Amino acid sequence: MRIALAQLNFHIGNFEHNFSKMEARVQEAKEAGADLIVFPELAVCGYPPRDFLEFEDFIDKCEEVVNRLAAFSKDIGIIVGSPARNPVVEGKDLFNAAFLLADGKIAGQANKALLPTYDIFDEYRYFEPNDQFSVVEFRGKRIALTVCEDIWNVGNENPLYKSCPMDTLRTQSPDLMINISASPFDYGQAHDRIEVVRANTLAYALPMIYVNHVGAQTDLIFDGGSLAVSAGGHVFLEMPYFEEALHIIELEKAESYTGAPNVNGKDKIGLIHDALLSGIRDYFGKLQFNKAILGLSGGIDSAVTALLAARALGPEHVHCVLMPSPFSSGHSVSDSEALCRRNGISYTIIPIDNMYEQMVAQMHPVFGDLSFDVTEENMQARIRGMTLMAMCNKLGYILLNTTNKSEAAVGYGTLYGDLCGGLAVLADVYKTEVYQLASYINKDSELIPENIIHKAPSAELRPNQTDQDSLPPYDLLDQILFQYIEKHQSPEDIIDKGFDQEIVRKTLRMVNRNEWKRFQMAPVLRVSPKAFGMGRRMPIEGQYLS
Amino acid sequence: MRIALAQLNFHIGNFEHNFSKMEARVQEAKEAGADLIVFPELAVCGYPPRDFLEFEDFIDKCEEVVNRLAAFSKDIGIIVGSPARNPVVEGKDLFNAAFLLADGKIAGQANKALLPTYDIFDEYRYFEPNDQFSVVEFRGKRIALTVCEDIWNVGNENPLYKSCPMDTLRTQSPDLMINISASPFDYGQAHDRIEVVRANTLAYALPMIYVNHVGAQTDLIFDGGSLAVSAGGHVFLEMPYFEEALHIIELEKAESYTGAPNVNGKDKIGLIHDALLSGIRDYFGKLQFNKAILGLSGGIDSAVTALLAARALGPEHVHCVLMPSPFSSGHSVSDSEALCRRNGISYTIIPIDNMYEQMVAQMHPVFGDLSFDVTEENMQARIRGMTLMAMCNKLGYILLNTTNKSEAAVGYGTLYGDLCGGLAVLADVYKTEVYQLASYINKDSELIPENIIHKAPSAELRPNQTDQDSLPPYDLLDQILFQYIEKHQSPEDIIDKGFDQEIVRKTLRMVNRNEWKRFQMAPVLRVSPKAFGMGRRMPIEGQYLS
Repeated sequence: MRIALAQLNFHIGNFEHNFSKMEARVQEAKEAGADLIVFPELAVCGYPPRDFLEFEDFIDKCEEVVNRLAAFSKDIGIIVGSPARNPVVEGKDLFNAAFLLADGKIAGQANKALLPTYDIFDEYRYFEPNDQFSVVEFRGKRIALTVCEDIWNVGNENPLYKSCPMDTLRTQSPDLMINISASPFDYGQAHDRIEVVRANTLAYALPMIYVNHVGAQTDLIFDGGSLAVSAGGHVFLEMPYFEEALHIIELEKAESYTGAPNVNGKDKIGLIHDALLSGIRDYFGKLQFNKAILGLSGGIDSAVTALLAARALGPEHVHCVLMPSPFSSGHSVSDSEALCRRNGISYTIIPIDNMYEQMVAQMHPVFGDLSFDVTEENMQARIRGMTLMAMCNKLGYILLNTTNKSEAAVGYGTLYGDLCGGLAVLADVYKTEVYQLASYINKDSELIPENIIHKAPSAELRPNQTDQDSLPPYDLLDQILFQYIEKHQSPEDIIDKGFDQEIVRKTLRMVNRNEWKRFQMAPVLRVSPKAFGMGRRMPIEGQYLS
Repeated sequence: MRIALAQLNFHIGNFEHNFSKMEARVQEAKEAGADLIVFPELAVCGYPPRDFLEFEDFIDKCEEVVNRLAAFSKDIGIIVGSPARNPVVEGKDLFNAAFLLADGKIAGQANKALLPTYDIFDEYRYFEPNDQFSVVEFRGKRIALTVCEDIWNVGNENPLYKSCPMDTLRTQSPDLMINISASPFDYGQAHDRIEVVRANTLAYALPMIYVNHVGAQTDLIFDGGSLAVSAGGHVFLEMPYFEEALHIIELEKAESYTGAPNVNGKDKIGLIHDALLSGIRDYFGKLQFNKAILGLSGGIDSAVTALLAARALGPEHVHCVLMPSPFSSGHSVSDSEALCRRNGISYTIIPIDNMYEQMVAQMHPVFGDLSFDVTEENMQARIRGMTLMAMCNKLGYILLNTTNKSEAAVGYGTLYGDLCGGLAVLADVYKTEVYQLASYINKDSELIPENIIHKAPSAELRPNQTDQDSLPPYDLLDQILFQYIEKHQSPEDIIDKGFDQEIVRKTLRMVNRNEWKRFQMAPVLRVSPKAFGMGRRMPIEGQYLS
């Protein structure tokens, strides 16, 4: 049996777009002699559709796409993910279904049993967990068809669910497993995905076809990496990351495979780099914008953001604004100009001195002789934010936010100032990782001037300021943040690892006291297992470690 | 049996505060001769604790409070809600539990079976659903103990869950039902709550004690309204709304009751009014702030917000800023001054003309002779936002946002401008309801000058502007929005109700195209069954009706 794996980039709620894309791939697979083509989870509507699923009209439109696709299944089988109405009145109204389309109609349906409801996932919000399992049959093969999470409960020390759907399906003598997924990228995901698929093939002694989404949906980035793995656990196909692709495998040849294809040999920083490009590109593409703007401070975060935007959109679609204030160093402008010239990025210099003086003057009747403090620092950041937003409004740009994860974590940033922006490109990348990204970008030539990389980080909002006036050194800070945010460690746990007690408590207090600020941040491109945003939901008024 | 219902306002993660509050009420109940005192769901940590539940340390602290409370249970039984560790390795690691404490130790435990995971609720994110049900026994009574949602699956046409815990518990011959809840306010909730509790008493022919939270947790407001209902469905106690209280009932006298107490006879707008006061008060109290600031435009939204803030915090803790621009009408200042004087609220006038001119001048080298458009309108809104934030930074205020639900829905507002603020007071109140709130506030005297109420709504950001230049009339707009947002109707459904096709499509397009803007809004005090924020999760890059 020849099976086509169709790893595609869908647009949420854009049914015509999604249908046309699948229709073209069905034709392509037919012409290549495939018996069966497999599309990913909820392909008809895109993933995650979130509360659109609560609209009957939205579900009608999903069903319509499934039915239209079914009409193309006369000479080829089609497996596709879609929400499906639950015919039983008790329980949630929908299933997260995988349909088998054949002979022009719906020939089989498998509903998802394990509904991820953690981190960025909200599936039990919408779907009833399935408890009825049957293999589907196609051209003499018995297929154990499952949806994403259904295969992830295997081999865990602390399993999230009480049972595995495959434990039931295996009793029905399947010939192979097909899993359709919507499994978003993080820097450890590709490894985990291969391990989980292999663990299933070994546990059930069956080959598995695994088809994932590719492309970004606002904050969530899907890397593809679809797989075909033999019953013996050999990966005989790994599809590319961050690219649409259609590959056809011959099931019968699976066992003759002898070595891993290893097509995707990138390390963590390389993967993050590619994921961020995909995130930027799709944010603009799906919103039908094509011009990005950002403020260049002369520091590393905005420099890396500019380079990523230029790579994602083309340098001709990126514009930088340099906005020196009375406290800016001379090199903040000259370094930024060098960066732009070197990379073919246009820029404008808009000094904010007059606006700053005017703002101080405007507030003088109220503030009198109260001394300079964070107020005046924030004024500068907010004048810059307002300037960039004026450029967006008048000239049709989207503003990219340049905050990194370390700053976002401790609230080192001005709300409505440098926290402005439609998309936070680096806010899931710790400062120490931003340095690694800069080195990665500079690996062949000095695209980012070394001076930008090596200067001491500073917001330049008061004379001789550096970040380390108010924060621990970033290599220390990032380790503490990682233990708390990614690893959920308590202050005591972290102190036990050898970190200074006072610094640990101060850091966690800063994290927890700044939930209100992060609540109003732009969507954050997610590249780690625990990003700010939908995947991390914290009380604002809470009083825990704060 | 004498049972004390303790309806209290907890602080999330503030274990010492929550413990002390409960300890004091245990003493009070003992002195009043109660056999048993009942606290609400997750009382030990406050509700909703959100992802704090993922920290082992947080759960340790919950267990500690339960154990400390148990020590006080020698002469009185205590029922209290807390997360509890799931001893079974398969499934989620926690239960949402109700503990019975007696004789100085944990004497019983009932875990929640039905886990609300919709709207603002995320319980399956954290908890394993219980499937083991046993009554708990105390002083000769067999108690069917359940947690919140467990009783809400009764009598629905389209039940969300496959079973009702009480269907099992009833077979164990209980003498009464006790339900501990965290059921947030919306304007229909009090009615629904009474109906559901009555439906249970009638279905199972048992009396029920129902204890709810009171007070606000950022966006979520709990109204209390705890209940005691006889086996015959008679409400013999309804506790006050929006107030902490301890009431003791005698179970044996329940059936002798003959009429409803009807202590809480408020209508929808009166309830919304009281809920918003509670929301403002607790936002400041729990964050340990006491001074609110807001911009007064001369319009009704900011006037109502000012009055609500003054009632919640005291007028001496509210400061208003009047920021006329070149496009402001004369009455915008005079009406606002009248409002402040009439209500004892201090104010400052800060004209933004110079800042606006300076901003136009700053952008002139870039914008050249491009004509006045929304850019310059947004500049004014952003200068005002920046001015208010400067006041917050320098003088220690929290900024209240004055956006209403109609504006928030269609994106009629400037991000980082009038959308600034720590808390959005009215963003779940449609414009037509804001008018009703104003009338409610003015019912005894003209606290809000009639001129503010009767002028045509205008942002005053360009000459002779009114809201109806770009929006349908609010009475029409609000009906369309309600059908879409609250009722999940499709455009066709709404048009079928007699609304103009073009207006409907344009309105829904505006709603769906502005998800990016709402994503960055402040938390919204929730008073309706479908508020913007955590309870309504929409894709930003989606393309559905947009």
